[in-house]
Amino acid sequence: MNDIRITPVSPGLRTALQDKIDQKTKPPGSLGKLEGLALQAGMVQNTLTPSVKNPAIIVFAGDHGIAADGQVNPFPQAVTAQMVYNFLNGGAAINVFCRQHQLDLTVVDAGVNHEFAPHPQLKDRKMGMGTQNFLHMPAMSLDQCKLAMQAGAAEVKLLHEKDCNVIGFGEMGIGNTSAASLLMSHFTGIPVAECTGAGTGSNAQQLAQKRAILQQVMAKHASPPSPEQALATFGGFEIAMICGAIQQAAALKMLVVIDGFIVTAALLAAVKMQPAVKDYCIFAHCSEEKGHKAMLQYLEVAPLLQMDMRLGEGTGAALAIPLIRSAVAFLEEMASFNSAQVSNRTI
Amino acid sequence: MNDIRITPVSPGLRTALQDKIDQKTKPPGSLGKLEGLALQAGMVQNTLTPSVKNPAIIVFAGDHGIAADGQVNPFPQAVTAQMVYNFLNGGAAINVFCRQHQLDLTVVDAGVNHEFAPHPQLKDRKMGMGTQNFLHMPAMSLDQCKLAMQAGAAEVKLLHEKDCNVIGFGEMGIGNTSAASLLMSHFTGIPVAECTGAGTGSNAQQLAQKRAILQQVMAKHASPPSPEQALATFGGFEIAMICGAIQQAAALKMLVVIDGFIVTAALLAAVKMQPAVKDYCIFAHCSEEKGHKAMLQYLEVAPLLQMDMRLGEGTGAALAIPLIRSAVAFLEEMASFNSAQVSNRTI
Repeated sequence: MNDIRITPVSPGLRTALQDKIDQKTKPPGSLGKLEGLALQAGMVQNTLTPSVKNPAIIVFAGDHGIAADGQVNPFPQAVTAQMVYNFLNGGAAINVFCRQHQLDLTVVDAGVNHEFAPHPQLKDRKMGMGTQNFLHMPAMSLDQCKLAMQAGAAEVKLLHEKDCNVIGFGEMGIGNTSAASLLMSHFTGIPVAECTGAGTGSNAQQLAQKRAILQQVMAKHASPPSPEQALATFGGFEIAMICGAIQQAAALKMLVVIDGFIVTAALLAAVKMQPAVKDYCIFAHCSEEKGHKAMLQYLEVAPLLQMDMRLGEGTGAALAIPLIRSAVAFLEEMASFNSAQVSNRTI
Repeated sequence: MNDIRITPVSPGLRTALQDKIDQKTKPPGSLGKLEGLALQAGMVQNTLTPSVKNPAIIVFAGDHGIAADGQVNPFPQAVTAQMVYNFLNGGAAINVFCRQHQLDLTVVDAGVNHEFAPHPQLKDRKMGMGTQNFLHMPAMSLDQCKLAMQAGAAEVKLLHEKDCNVIGFGEMGIGNTSAASLLMSHFTGIPVAECTGAGTGSNAQQLAQKRAILQQVMAKHASPPSPEQALATFGGFEIAMICGAIQQAAALKMLVVIDGFIVTAALLAAVKMQPAVKDYCIFAHCSEEKGHKAMLQYLEVAPLLQMDMRLGEGTGAALAIPLIRSAVAFLEEMASFNSAQVSNRTI
């Protein structure tokens, strides 16, 4: 990933954008977060007329060694592949929301423990039949991790070439809340037990077991020396691909819509590699998964939505993209005080 | 309004709807508030396949006697009429969001202090050139209040006849946060100072003056004996029309999308008249206007969005309608565990 260089967003147009926002026929600041989105979109795209063009979601799917024997996950590992078929058949929540909002949807096999027949909607980026079990060894090698990041980046480039400028990421992978909790604990310093939640629905006993196992994992792999090595140790193939994809999107000056707990864990790794990536990110939704709120606080960012969801797949990103469209639309279409002859003078 | 009878939503399909939601390919509960919306839509429409048909926003505009001399409002009263022209020309925030989400938009002159020439997009329901100043006398007579409620109801009936089943309300009226604060204080018992916020942007000195004046108003009109009389005393023509419109929509078993501070004040009056109205309401957005959060807590409801907006016009309702569409879409379109052959058994 060393070839990807992310430059901080230029502040050059900030004042002009803020003036344009403040001339719209509304009390100053009264469109709240939409005003922040409009400002960010203008700065990222370096224009007073930002746009949302061909917005897309990529869902990366991968399996996890830790999940093979069901010690951290209430659902069996086979569900990862079953859900990939569900994505390909259009029956999952992310399919519904992408259809509703006319979002392009790409499904990537990052390393599912299943051989898929070729399918026109499925991108084959398989790194293996799932990761290694990080209870015993790193989830993947450093080389695998770098290849996975490059594969994620390559998928973003393909969409950028098709004139996409807003992209969100989703994931599917039984066991991947465990990987995300480990990455969160490593990068934030918060004890792993506090980073560990119920995932798809662990009960109290399962959650206690999940916490105990993740504490063992943390103890085994004391302090990987670089963010790349931490990602290789605790990550998943889908998480590494998302980490690379986020960086590539930021390098291409796209708006990056960050979904829930697992995608934010991938972003944490990306921020440690290249802090400027955060300028390009829009935080879609605060998940109900324990730990996500603290992750967002660590990043010092506020999510657009709190819909109490905890599904993944990029569903939070898909629901937030209409709000980005609203932001660029008000900036483009609303009348100004002058053009509408509305008084903006206080009495 | 005595001819409008609202029946509580029938619980008959609750279990069947919840079963349908729980059979979708996702962990139980993982779509959060969207699941609650799907359940409510199904119960209101009494069907396992609820829909969003021809969703519409009605913006009611009216002027306020209290605002004529600028004691409670930083913007001059003339802005109400100026903004109505802005709505008719398509340049306001609500126009932008209605275009984005293909929402039908109706603008109603409920009692603006301006004579409008006939315009194809403007409905003439004018009750007067603004209300009386409630610092000196009730804003309107009880008869006027009832006529305004009937006028609001009539606008809803027209949309219902055009097969609209989801409706949101917005308002425009310089001074109407004062009316809403008074209604809130009257109906909730919370001291009016705590119900009074900056509106479109009062500074600290203006806010202190606004509070002092509203305390005088409350002292002058001790305890109107019925919700209708309270609405006549403290309301506005646009607020009374919204109160009637909400009740009519619920009586017609439409989903009613409640926007910000002023619309919620109208709902408070409606709830006091007919408590069952609440079953039909979806709470779109928690406004930044001081008091709205406490109003929602008093009603024991949770808003869908917290976008830090405080604009009115029905903008929060317009942004929330896509979420209602998402709710009915997942219920209609998502595969079930059976149909997708996804395991829903835990290990």
